[in-house]
Amino acid sequence: MKTIDVCLSPDLLHLYDVRGKMVVVVDILRATSCMCTAIAHGVTEIIPVATLEECAELGKQGYVTAAERDGKKADGFDLGNSPFSYMTPEMKGKKVAVTTTNGTYAITKSKEAEVLVAGSFLNLTAVCEMIHQVNLDTIVLCAGWKGKVNLEDSLYAGAICHKLKNFLAPACDAPLMAKSMYETEKNNMLGFLQQSSHVKRLHNLDVIKDIEFCLTPDQFTEVPVLKGNKLISNTL
Amino acid sequence: MKTIDVCLSPDLLHLYDVRGKMVVVVDILRATSCMCTAIAHGVTEIIPVATLEECAELGKQGYVTAAERDGKKADGFDLGNSPFSYMTPEMKGKKVAVTTTNGTYAITKSKEAEVLVAGSFLNLTAVCEMIHQVNLDTIVLCAGWKGKVNLEDSLYAGAICHKLKNFLAPACDAPLMAKSMYETEKNNMLGFLQQSSHVKRLHNLDVIKDIEFCLTPDQFTEVPVLKGNKLISNTL
Repeated sequence: MKTIDVCLSPDLLHLYDVRGKMVVVVDILRATSCMCTAIAHGVTEIIPVATLEECAELGKQGYVTAAERDGKKADGFDLGNSPFSYMTPEMKGKKVAVTTTNGTYAITKSKEAEVLVAGSFLNLTAVCEMIHQVNLDTIVLCAGWKGKVNLEDSLYAGAICHKLKNFLAPACDAPLMAKSMYETEKNNMLGFLQQSSHVKRLHNLDVIKDIEFCLTPDQFTEVPVLKGNKLISNTL
Repeated sequence: MKTIDVCLSPDLLHLYDVRGKMVVVVDILRATSCMCTAIAHGVTEIIPVATLEECAELGKQGYVTAAERDGKKADGFDLGNSPFSYMTPEMKGKKVAVTTTNGTYAITKSKEAEVLVAGSFLNLTAVCEMIHQVNLDTIVLCAGWKGKVNLEDSLYAGAICHKLKNFLAPACDAPLMAKSMYETEKNNMLGFLQQSSHVKRLHNLDVIKDIEFCLTPDQFTEVPVLKGNKLISNTL
């Protein structure tokens, strides 16, 4: 039986060996939710970069630039971090360069994985089917919030563990924690998240519509997969 | 309103500032459960040390030595890591030097705290009363397992957050995660823990009696408090 593991923060990733494994990177609010939305709406490639400078540089090469810092769109870039930005017809066929506070860092840290995908509630079932198909030991890497754990990414990790519980064995205690929390809170995830100081802070930024959307399962069947330094649509 | 925070692993402690705060170190299986048991049974002081060598050195100075590595008693020391070792009449009045895989490391890493105590289910209510009395922002530091999170320490953190929910505000998402899990699993903690690979491994070491005891709330009213390099009985 293959295993499922959960890394609750990139600051714990040194304890995990991603080599030879499938890694699902998750930053529900909102980096990987945006990536899934973009790929589902015809964006052909996404390059995640660590810095605003690299993002701006790719902008000069024709990439649409998306940059978020501390929950807000960074000045001088085309897009911020709302999934709705990617739903317009003009995004179809575009290439995107993206940098965010937490999500792109998590992707950069796990590039040695055999298979790396971006997960979100929006493509939850598609990611689970891909885990099943790839059939490797799998790690869900939560982007968290500046190194700390967060509710929404942990809930998503729990959702994966819950849906695959008959197929994958927990590799340590983190999957059991995430699964327990998801099974308790799954019918009221928005209410649960509203206790979070991180989410309260985002509320102030008037992104409640984004948050509700990012918690909605199975809007898309596409899975962004890393090939080289680019996320493209799932073609195993 | 003062805050409660939870650090799920010593490997995340760099994200927290313990200065000016009260820190509750917890290693349910079994370092801090042993410390609480020892202090409640008349041990006058406990020196937590990082290495077997330091522990042996204190042995030469008349300390009873307790040393555990990977769940087992280390060779050449007086005691291992079972709370029942401390319940004998001959322990009364003794001084103990202790080193364990995870618990003593967590104490060493948080020595800059204003108040540092050892917590366990065995003195849960007493620790909560002390948090109330000390009235500082508080961090529950889970010892975890070799850097990874574990169920039993996270459940204990959740128990503290649950019991003090009307008195302390959550400082980040980790307290909300721990509290949710505790509230779900509190009536079947042993069953929940039996899914854990860490606990399954301990089972092989025939310590089920220890585990059952370590999950029993409120056996003692004493709280081990760090003064200098020694844990002594609560005298605020």
